Amino acid sequence: MSGTLYGLGVGPGDPELVTLKALRVLRALPVVAYPAPPEGTSFARSVVASQLSPAQAEIAIRVPMTRAVAPAQAVYDRAALDIGRHLEAGRDVGVLCQGDPFFYGSFIQLFERLATRYPTQVVPGVSSLTACAAAAGVPLVTRDEILTVLPATLAEAALEKRLKQAEAAAILKLGRHLAKVRRILKRLGLADRATYIEHASLASQKIQPLAGADPASAPYFSMILVRRGKVAR
Amino acid sequence: MSGTLYGLGVGPGDPELVTLKALRVLRALPVVAYPAPPEGTSFARSVVASQLSPAQAEIAIRVPMTRAVAPAQAVYDRAALDIGRHLEAGRDVGVLCQGDPFFYGSFIQLFERLATRYPTQVVPGVSSLTACAAAAGVPLVTRDEILTVLPATLAEAALEKRLKQAEAAAILKLGRHLAKVRRILKRLGLADRATYIEHASLASQKIQPLAGADPASAPYFSMILVRRGKVAR
Repeated sequence: MSGTLYGLGVGPGDPELVTLKALRVLRALPVVAYPAPPEGTSFARSVVASQLSPAQAEIAIRVPMTRAVAPAQAVYDRAALDIGRHLEAGRDVGVLCQGDPFFYGSFIQLFERLATRYPTQVVPGVSSLTACAAAAGVPLVTRDEILTVLPATLAEAALEKRLKQAEAAAILKLGRHLAKVRRILKRLGLADRATYIEHASLASQKIQPLAGADPASAPYFSMILVRRGKVAR
Repeated sequence: MSGTLYGLGVGPGDPELVTLKALRVLRALPVVAYPAPPEGTSFARSVVASQLSPAQAEIAIRVPMTRAVAPAQAVYDRAALDIGRHLEAGRDVGVLCQGDPFFYGSFIQLFERLATRYPTQVVPGVSSLTACAAAAGVPLVTRDEILTVLPATLAEAALEKRLKQAEAAAILKLGRHLAKVRRILKRLGLADRATYIEHASLASQKIQPLAGADPASAPYFSMILVRRGKVAR
């Protein structure tokens, strides 16, 4: 009998925004894996660090910080091999995921490599989407509104085309793309309806009108929420 | 000092998918409110029923099941008055919300009526979006994909226009609109990539390819997930 692969959503950062299910599964795991930067600590691990035991084996998946695809793919290939060996030996492996595993999660990389071969379960988590809205006091969508979720990494024209049609939008992965997004929202007359949020639910949380956000310091894990209500359909 | 209004996301239904924070806040509340059908039990309340104490006052907000707007508005007006009286008296009031309070939540109705006058905090929850994806084993979005969230209550032409452009989509509030949505997805050649999910995370959970879903029995709380990857931008 092989072990089970778990994708464990640990929420946006506040250790209290972890679910009872994620905690129960986590505590019973012999092997815990998590994405981490090339050096230093894993954010997902830090959220549940107080729940880990020295008896648990840990696998840090050190993902290179490059825009090239191949180096990261090689890291996920190798991590899937490591994790697969534990699963073959009958040991359950949990992959800690910031936010939710299936909402822009790097867990999807491992899922695609392993889920056809091993029993796999995903424990959903509080995503950055709802965490940012809650922190900012900005409702995401109501009634029959459409919500569009856009990575800021897209080209300016593509972003503008989608935002022009959007009734409610969340723009994530801002980082160095903040100035570009602000430019678009200004052109569309939406800048005054936009809220900037970084590090939602953490002590370092920052919330401000988009106009005041500093493009030089926006982290990758920041978001803009915009809501204007109905547009022509 | 007035009390604080809390919007408490209790997640999709599995009592284990409640966060530690929602539980902590809930247990300390003197007054608990929740939406409920005209008769019978509240779904949001049922998720955390085992955590409630007889010492807590309860307010059932009985929302009429009609498509007309006015009757529901009158109910929310009255509920806001009731809740406001407790807040004025210094008592904290928590509103239990299925999924997340700001993701199509009826809590938004109360938030709009009360948040400018009373301290308000929203505790985000696991939304139906991530819960359905986890239950079905279907990643929502990855890398720089765009996610579009659409209520099935929209007109057929509007839905089709948006789905034609969508790389990844979640279509909620299906109920009697299932046949319409399936028709659209067939026309767009997307029906075979669509998964139908109802009652995610509950014992009654059902997951099947869209082709097999029964339009006569789809509940309001069901969802279709579609992902096809890049479309022309």
